[in-house]
Amino acid sequence: MSRNGRVAVVGAGLHPFGHVPDKGVEELGRQAALDALADAGLSYRDVQAGFLARVTQLGIGVGQRVFGELGLTGIPVTNIELACASSSRGVMLAAEAIRAGSVDVAMVIGVEKMGRGMLQPAGERSYQAVLGLTIMPGIYAMMARRHMHLHGTKPEHFAQVSVKSHRNAVHNSCAQYRVALTLEEVLNSRMIADPITLYQCCPTSDGASAIVLASERRARQLTTSPVFLTAWAGGTPVFDPDEPGLSEGPTPLLARKVYDAAGLGPEDVDLCQVHDAFTPGEIFTIEELGLVPAGEGGPFVWEGGTEISGRMPVNTDGGLLSRGHPMGATGGAMIAEIVRQLRGQAGPRQVANPNVGLLQNAGIGGVNVMAFHR
Amino acid sequence: MSRNGRVAVVGAGLHPFGHVPDKGVEELGRQAALDALADAGLSYRDVQAGFLARVTQLGIGVGQRVFGELGLTGIPVTNIELACASSSRGVMLAAEAIRAGSVDVAMVIGVEKMGRGMLQPAGERSYQAVLGLTIMPGIYAMMARRHMHLHGTKPEHFAQVSVKSHRNAVHNSCAQYRVALTLEEVLNSRMIADPITLYQCCPTSDGASAIVLASERRARQLTTSPVFLTAWAGGTPVFDPDEPGLSEGPTPLLARKVYDAAGLGPEDVDLCQVHDAFTPGEIFTIEELGLVPAGEGGPFVWEGGTEISGRMPVNTDGGLLSRGHPMGATGGAMIAEIVRQLRGQAGPRQVANPNVGLLQNAGIGGVNVMAFHR
Repeated sequence: MSRNGRVAVVGAGLHPFGHVPDKGVEELGRQAALDALADAGLSYRDVQAGFLARVTQLGIGVGQRVFGELGLTGIPVTNIELACASSSRGVMLAAEAIRAGSVDVAMVIGVEKMGRGMLQPAGERSYQAVLGLTIMPGIYAMMARRHMHLHGTKPEHFAQVSVKSHRNAVHNSCAQYRVALTLEEVLNSRMIADPITLYQCCPTSDGASAIVLASERRARQLTTSPVFLTAWAGGTPVFDPDEPGLSEGPTPLLARKVYDAAGLGPEDVDLCQVHDAFTPGEIFTIEELGLVPAGEGGPFVWEGGTEISGRMPVNTDGGLLSRGHPMGATGGAMIAEIVRQLRGQAGPRQVANPNVGLLQNAGIGGVNVMAFHR
Repeated sequence: MSRNGRVAVVGAGLHPFGHVPDKGVEELGRQAALDALADAGLSYRDVQAGFLARVTQLGIGVGQRVFGELGLTGIPVTNIELACASSSRGVMLAAEAIRAGSVDVAMVIGVEKMGRGMLQPAGERSYQAVLGLTIMPGIYAMMARRHMHLHGTKPEHFAQVSVKSHRNAVHNSCAQYRVALTLEEVLNSRMIADPITLYQCCPTSDGASAIVLASERRARQLTTSPVFLTAWAGGTPVFDPDEPGLSEGPTPLLARKVYDAAGLGPEDVDLCQVHDAFTPGEIFTIEELGLVPAGEGGPFVWEGGTEISGRMPVNTDGGLLSRGHPMGATGGAMIAEIVRQLRGQAGPRQVANPNVGLLQNAGIGGVNVMAFHR
């Protein structure tokens, strides 16, 4: 396929997500990186290229400071920003460098310190503010209302995403919220943007993730059963001025690209991680990925299809909603969960014998879809 | 060599550098991109991946706004930061994606709006401030003093770099300063950090650059004589705690890597672009690249060796000193000049019949070295 064969994920690490006022991004990133290197059985001297993903910490040279905590070995370090999809994009760039044959081992660290109460800006254009699109819940609420209108999806369906998410996170020691919630608690929490209540919104979070990638050759020196990054694709919304109308989100097209490149179809996927910043996102996305027919996501969730024991387990670690969403670290955390699941290391939240995991990580300005297999 | 063979630079464009208060980064970037696409004979629809390099404009989604001005074609756009070496790093990442076979055409846009009077921070650590290392001229001045002490380099040698730079920039319509300076004018300008006077410091600048890269196959559809990006390497300073002492700058090691990968030696280089943020930088760097023996850079410059007609033409477009240094755009501008020279399109500043061009672009946090050939 390329000079270096396939690309493997050989290590994944996290600093637990939550509010961590006493640590800077350097310490958060260092702990996640050491965790990932230990997981890989590598030392920092083995890493040949570094990528640092962050969104709110936009000072110059953040990656140089974070990687500098691990040693000054001379490797190139590049700072990446793609909003909430930053660290999965970093993993894609690291994978390109490995597939190109330029390096054998690369590490992506995602860090974020968001503190409390930060609003998530949706855009800077004034017409967006006029339309009420200044914060993300409003956008998701409008899409949710559309889905309800078109497909009969109910507020309870969206709320059930959060119930499932929180139940999964109880078993995740890195999750920000490890408290199970009832459907009533979710529905009766404060209304943010109808139909989205407070417990259907991801929190602001501090935290870090680290992913170590390697060429197939190097990975097979480390383990007899590597997890491979099978295929990946990133993109932005499409708008054709010759055919004006609603712009199309990139997820369906990216999913088709990834399925084609991986030689897989939706029926081969055993579990997935999707961008559930707000509960409707999980329902939209499993439809866009072709995992359930369009419009049937709500009932599918309601009937338990996305539970760990369901037909298509989704966000087995609690997702953004419960694991937390330190923006620059989120993509790496999604990958870490898929890797643990494919290795059979997910403990009480383990999916039975999965072979293929799918990821969708969405940010303002870009979406990434990736497939993994063991 | 890889799935896609070699990587070519098929288009280069600039928005003229200077103070451009009436345009935002979107418009600066758009103009550079359209210039580069026209140069390549491509339309924006041909571009399959985008990278946006910027340093001072660190808001979320700058690249999405800049690339969005060109169309919403759905391509992935990634924001990159590596201080003054941001856009050359973007070109390296684009080249990896092409070499990996993931895309055939990619574009890197570098933009910056620095306005007037911005200091260039050298670091955030408090000991650096104690040592007077809070701004770049102090660091370069200390290194210059060391070079004078070790090798007998004279203040006139450094000043001559600026004289040559300004003379070259007179012939560059995109340059910020197109005024020839005498040696006396340079030496007698205000002292900033002895021996560095004002006219030996690069200015703050607004501007943009755009570079279009393509696979060899695609490039050969566009032109019979492509310019190839032969080899590239990026790195950070090395410090070995087991052998403490002065940390080594990455340029010599990166140059060796690039020479080895390209199958070239310093004797094959016909012209180069180096990071002359301050005049001593040009002298240090041509030594570190092996283009002149260590310690002989000063006399080499003084005797005309780096002139357009000299043995090793350096910064033929005026360099950072005279062309200007809008940080995120600088690496792309360096590449643009090498491409124009290798194509024989540099007009009054054309080097006679060059085949190989070398680039060194240095930033806080990383250095990139790249070789190009026709």
